[in-house]
Amino acid sequence: MNEENKGRLTLPTDVDMVEETIRLKELLQADAFRDCDGTQMPKELLNQNVKIYATYYTTRNDNAWAMKNPEEIQQEYLISDPITARSNTLSIKLMQGFHTEQLKVNTIDSPKRWWEVIDRTTGKVLPSEQWEYDAASGEVTLQSIPYHVYTVSFLAFLIWDPVHMYNSITNDWKSSPHQLTYDVRQPKTQKYVKEKLKKWCEENPHVDVVRFTTFFHQFTLTFDKQKREKYVEWFGYSASVSPYILEQFEKWAGYTFRPEFIVDQGYHNSTFRVPSKEFLDFIEFQQIEVSKLAKELVDIVHSYNKEAMMFLGDHWIGTEPFGKYFANIGLDAVVGSVGDGVTLRMISDIQGVTYTEGRLLPYFFPDVFKEGGDPIGEAKDNWIKARRAILRSPLDRIGYGGYLKLAKEWPGFIEEIQKVVDEFRQIHENTQGTKAYTAPFKVGILNCWGNLRRWMANQVHHALWYREIYSYVGVIECLSGMPLDVEFITFEEIKKGISPEMKVIINVGDAYTSWSGGDNWKDEKVVCAIRQFVDNGGGFIGVGEPSACQYEGQFFQLRDVLGVDREMGFSISTDKYNEMDKNHFILEDIVGEINFGEGKSRIYAYGENYQILNMDGKYSRLVVNEYGKGRSVYFSGLPYSPQNCRILLRAIYYAAHEEKEMKKFYVSNVDTEVSAYEKTGRIAVINNCNAPRQTELYIHGERKEYLSMCPMEMRWLSF
Amino acid sequence: MNEENKGRLTLPTDVDMVEETIRLKELLQADAFRDCDGTQMPKELLNQNVKIYATYYTTRNDNAWAMKNPEEIQQEYLISDPITARSNTLSIKLMQGFHTEQLKVNTIDSPKRWWEVIDRTTGKVLPSEQWEYDAASGEVTLQSIPYHVYTVSFLAFLIWDPVHMYNSITNDWKSSPHQLTYDVRQPKTQKYVKEKLKKWCEENPHVDVVRFTTFFHQFTLTFDKQKREKYVEWFGYSASVSPYILEQFEKWAGYTFRPEFIVDQGYHNSTFRVPSKEFLDFIEFQQIEVSKLAKELVDIVHSYNKEAMMFLGDHWIGTEPFGKYFANIGLDAVVGSVGDGVTLRMISDIQGVTYTEGRLLPYFFPDVFKEGGDPIGEAKDNWIKARRAILRSPLDRIGYGGYLKLAKEWPGFIEEIQKVVDEFRQIHENTQGTKAYTAPFKVGILNCWGNLRRWMANQVHHALWYREIYSYVGVIECLSGMPLDVEFITFEEIKKGISPEMKVIINVGDAYTSWSGGDNWKDEKVVCAIRQFVDNGGGFIGVGEPSACQYEGQFFQLRDVLGVDREMGFSISTDKYNEMDKNHFILEDIVGEINFGEGKSRIYAYGENYQILNMDGKYSRLVVNEYGKGRSVYFSGLPYSPQNCRILLRAIYYAAHEEKEMKKFYVSNVDTEVSAYEKTGRIAVINNCNAPRQTELYIHGERKEYLSMCPMEMRWLSF
Repeated sequence: MNEENKGRLTLPTDVDMVEETIRLKELLQADAFRDCDGTQMPKELLNQNVKIYATYYTTRNDNAWAMKNPEEIQQEYLISDPITARSNTLSIKLMQGFHTEQLKVNTIDSPKRWWEVIDRTTGKVLPSEQWEYDAASGEVTLQSIPYHVYTVSFLAFLIWDPVHMYNSITNDWKSSPHQLTYDVRQPKTQKYVKEKLKKWCEENPHVDVVRFTTFFHQFTLTFDKQKREKYVEWFGYSASVSPYILEQFEKWAGYTFRPEFIVDQGYHNSTFRVPSKEFLDFIEFQQIEVSKLAKELVDIVHSYNKEAMMFLGDHWIGTEPFGKYFANIGLDAVVGSVGDGVTLRMISDIQGVTYTEGRLLPYFFPDVFKEGGDPIGEAKDNWIKARRAILRSPLDRIGYGGYLKLAKEWPGFIEEIQKVVDEFRQIHENTQGTKAYTAPFKVGILNCWGNLRRWMANQVHHALWYREIYSYVGVIECLSGMPLDVEFITFEEIKKGISPEMKVIINVGDAYTSWSGGDNWKDEKVVCAIRQFVDNGGGFIGVGEPSACQYEGQFFQLRDVLGVDREMGFSISTDKYNEMDKNHFILEDIVGEINFGEGKSRIYAYGENYQILNMDGKYSRLVVNEYGKGRSVYFSGLPYSPQNCRILLRAIYYAAHEEKEMKKFYVSNVDTEVSAYEKTGRIAVINNCNAPRQTELYIHGERKEYLSMCPMEMRWLSF
Repeated sequence: MNEENKGRLTLPTDVDMVEETIRLKELLQADAFRDCDGTQMPKELLNQNVKIYATYYTTRNDNAWAMKNPEEIQQEYLISDPITARSNTLSIKLMQGFHTEQLKVNTIDSPKRWWEVIDRTTGKVLPSEQWEYDAASGEVTLQSIPYHVYTVSFLAFLIWDPVHMYNSITNDWKSSPHQLTYDVRQPKTQKYVKEKLKKWCEENPHVDVVRFTTFFHQFTLTFDKQKREKYVEWFGYSASVSPYILEQFEKWAGYTFRPEFIVDQGYHNSTFRVPSKEFLDFIEFQQIEVSKLAKELVDIVHSYNKEAMMFLGDHWIGTEPFGKYFANIGLDAVVGSVGDGVTLRMISDIQGVTYTEGRLLPYFFPDVFKEGGDPIGEAKDNWIKARRAILRSPLDRIGYGGYLKLAKEWPGFIEEIQKVVDEFRQIHENTQGTKAYTAPFKVGILNCWGNLRRWMANQVHHALWYREIYSYVGVIECLSGMPLDVEFITFEEIKKGISPEMKVIINVGDAYTSWSGGDNWKDEKVVCAIRQFVDNGGGFIGVGEPSACQYEGQFFQLRDVLGVDREMGFSISTDKYNEMDKNHFILEDIVGEINFGEGKSRIYAYGENYQILNMDGKYSRLVVNEYGKGRSVYFSGLPYSPQNCRILLRAIYYAAHEEKEMKKFYVSNVDTEVSAYEKTGRIAVINNCNAPRQTELYIHGERKEYLSMCPMEMRWLSF
């Protein structure tokens, strides 16, 4: 066995798995063990010459403290169901639809100060003398106008930690008591938690890595009466509030806080909403405060010669790794769950830590390791997507989570992850920490969030498939494994000037979402900046409803650049004579039908410089356009698939006017990809498909090899 | 032959068809002859004891007059292509994209007074000193901001009548000179046209019916460089303008006219646009003036003991039959083209005339009567749709148009129309002018246009199929043959109060169009009126994007009433647990799949009182909801089909709480329908399908007959 072919791997364990853990450690050459929510580190494993990770909960797992300090339990802004009045008074039951074991109305802090009753028919806030809360009935009674709709925004305590609740439900934990939360930002708890961490470090000398899960504020996750998920927003700030924090925010921001800044008409500032100035202020404030306090905990860990690792998830609100303040925390490492290429890049692209670790799927939980489940298939799919992203931006380590017992007992599963671990180590061996070749220009994803949500664009919940987004996330997923430097940029940045290194700007999403941009497209500075950029030779790629915002006779505000607009009903009377011509550089490799997913319909070509490459009846799905010296490409949708990766790659090189550069390192078969490491002289060809493939390898524009690839194969060659 | 079985039929003729016309007159028992655009009435037919119709053009067919009075040629407001500036000056070629044989820039009236240059990036009008028009180059040169988009709104003369141009192109008339237009509203032409009409009446004593085609203003119809249709709007007012008229309008309205009132960002006030106050004012003004002047021409015709008939089409702008001033014209008759049930009701529902006549399809033109054409199939389809509407609201007469020669020479075609004519006469014979049974409540179609566009809702061009609308027009088409009194009502009327006779309100269309209603749904009076109506027992039916307008956390503003909303991306984080239950009154007769057409996607059920009857994946397509004492039904789309007629019929009876009334007169097979005439004791069962059908007939709730129907059969029974 090669010297390199060991380490870089973390295994979960449990008290009943001592023997097995040692056997698997040897088999897989693991160099770290970890515990999980629901498992414990057996003492017998502490002398195994591996690093020991300990999951550390800063905000839960101490019900005694929480019960003693009920006013410092974490809080969340909730909005009641919108209720239609039928007379001049209306009573709204606040907890209707929520699970009362998870959330409890906060009656400690003054409702009149912190709540808001809104007439949603007019958008007006009710004066506080027009409503009363009755704690006994749990109802707000208000003076209503008949047939107007009202909501109550209110504060509730998180009396069951959402992740503990999720894990309890998923694993059917009957006996474990509900873990209450406490808010580390508040003075008593803050002091207590710091002391407790010190004490814990002292009592756990064998622990090498404190794995914070995570710091202080849980992403938004609420459950309904039937304990089903009611609302989930992986980026949500709704549960990061308390009067204590909000009063500080008011001082910092210089204006009065309103609950509406958080409940946002009931959309809870989903990342799909164009963020309000006030919400962006709140994010900024929270990130400043959370990073400061997190640093204090990390410093404590360091003072005991332990490493501090952060889990990217759970209570990660305020610590977003691509935020401005993250590096100040001083963490040694970040670990996160890898659902696909995009979520891998979320971790591997993080700056300001010594190393990154990816927890591969599947998690060893009984929701997958059950009759009818397919953990091996999941592991394969996951690895195909992760591998191509690792080749572009490597993680330093990988690992698994959950109950080792489940994995061990599933026939063939350990063999499957053995292959994964082996390929992962091959990548490090061949690349020696050098970067893969990337095209000599940058690509920018333009949306309202920019780098703060790097590799997080167009997503709802971490790596979950949603019908509404897969045709857009596909673009980001394709990019996660491409030989391209990708930046995520905001409209504010665009207005300040576009970097000369940037050759292609991409805008992807549904109209009026933060991803498309909404009213930003009415901003003359935005449209002029992009028109000038393209006119002077830049490339623009739009997917779905790019630059969409109904205004002054256009729906796509960059209709002139894109060569397409969307028929919204107002211009049906205008005849369109769209005809298809498939003959184009972008489609040269493409044989089969193109999958546009749930792409937008009613797209028509516009102007005189377009070429339509794909149509749906009389409407278009793929259109290129010349604009001055520049070019644009429009896709109605682009779900992830190996073929769509290729189409997008070609579209980017075309838009950048860099067609000649494309075959510097290239493989002919669309199911295969190539990564070249010029410093080590090594090249990897991967087959992204679970079937054999033939492919030609081009180096510096010339055909060098004809390769027969096994299913899922990764082959290394020298050049 | 029954005495009734004659008459009520108009045939076209031509100079080369004397013998044939006489033969067909006898065969079909026609009682009127007509000429057409491109044909002439032969003298030999004037003694055939039939009424003679003469097509009369008030605005064309007199190039000598037009050329002598170029300033009184008709005008149209056009908008240039939107052009993006790349520097500080920009030149826009006005006629780019238009056909210069049809339209010519008006340089007689001051451009600075009547034109408008708009920066479409900011929406601001350019001061007139910042642009100049150069007649030689045909360009407006303006001071621009780089990368802003500009348009020029300008006046052009209609130097080729659009319908004459259309007919010339369609029939490949090479030799006939382009017919110029002239504007009868202007003083010199008005005087001339009146005198000419008198003279014409004197010179044509044999003419019984003057068929005006039509009065003064052509609907909007422009052609592009290649003589292809560029823009068509059957309801368009863009070609009804001139400085002479606009100065009168300014006095009447009390405010300054702006070209933008007409060009409307380039959408030219398509009926799909929520009409501006100014455009509604302009319509009102034009209808007042046109009806006054039309009356003068009708009076002249009457003074010669001739009848005045109006063709519903061509130059019909200002004479819309459901407008407030139409009856004042004093016409004897209206004739119009019947494309389907909806367009039939457009004619047969007209009040204020003595009789109505429908020109059935196909028109005897070479675009249908050609190799590969199917005139018999078109005649059958047309009749199936027309017949069910005639049974509800009969026309007095039918007729055909075009070249009789083409019809005569097509094998089997005359036999087909013989059947049609025979069935048409049977209807009159059996109904004796009495009205068919209708349900004991009214149904209202709610949109921005109301009764002014009765049976014209959701349509682009007269009876033409468009992919964007067929899923909505289907609702109106279904209604055109149903046993229901249908009203078309506006939001303004809703706010004033809903008639107690009205039991169901229907709102159909795409978000932000005039048919759905756009910002009207932010009006608290509108939503409260409908909520109260339904709460008190009314029914509401929404199709597509009813009550849609993103505002205060809702997309469908009547989400509470409808029990559905549409996912626009902002609430993907909110879990939806929608489950289907098909067991419902509405679907009792329905066996096969339901066709929702190009219905809206991403519809989810909302609230606690819904039942989902049809789903598309996790989203819904057909949902019912209970709201107080009332009910609602939501369809994602409803194209016309016999099955969808039945589903809609049941939905309406359900929404109205009138399920028990439904089987007063009823047939079981969805491809069949029944009409009952209580005063004559006759009942018609029709088979709307070109195949045999078995159906059970219910009268007063009881099964009375089991009928075996031939393809397309109409059977009359007594009860």
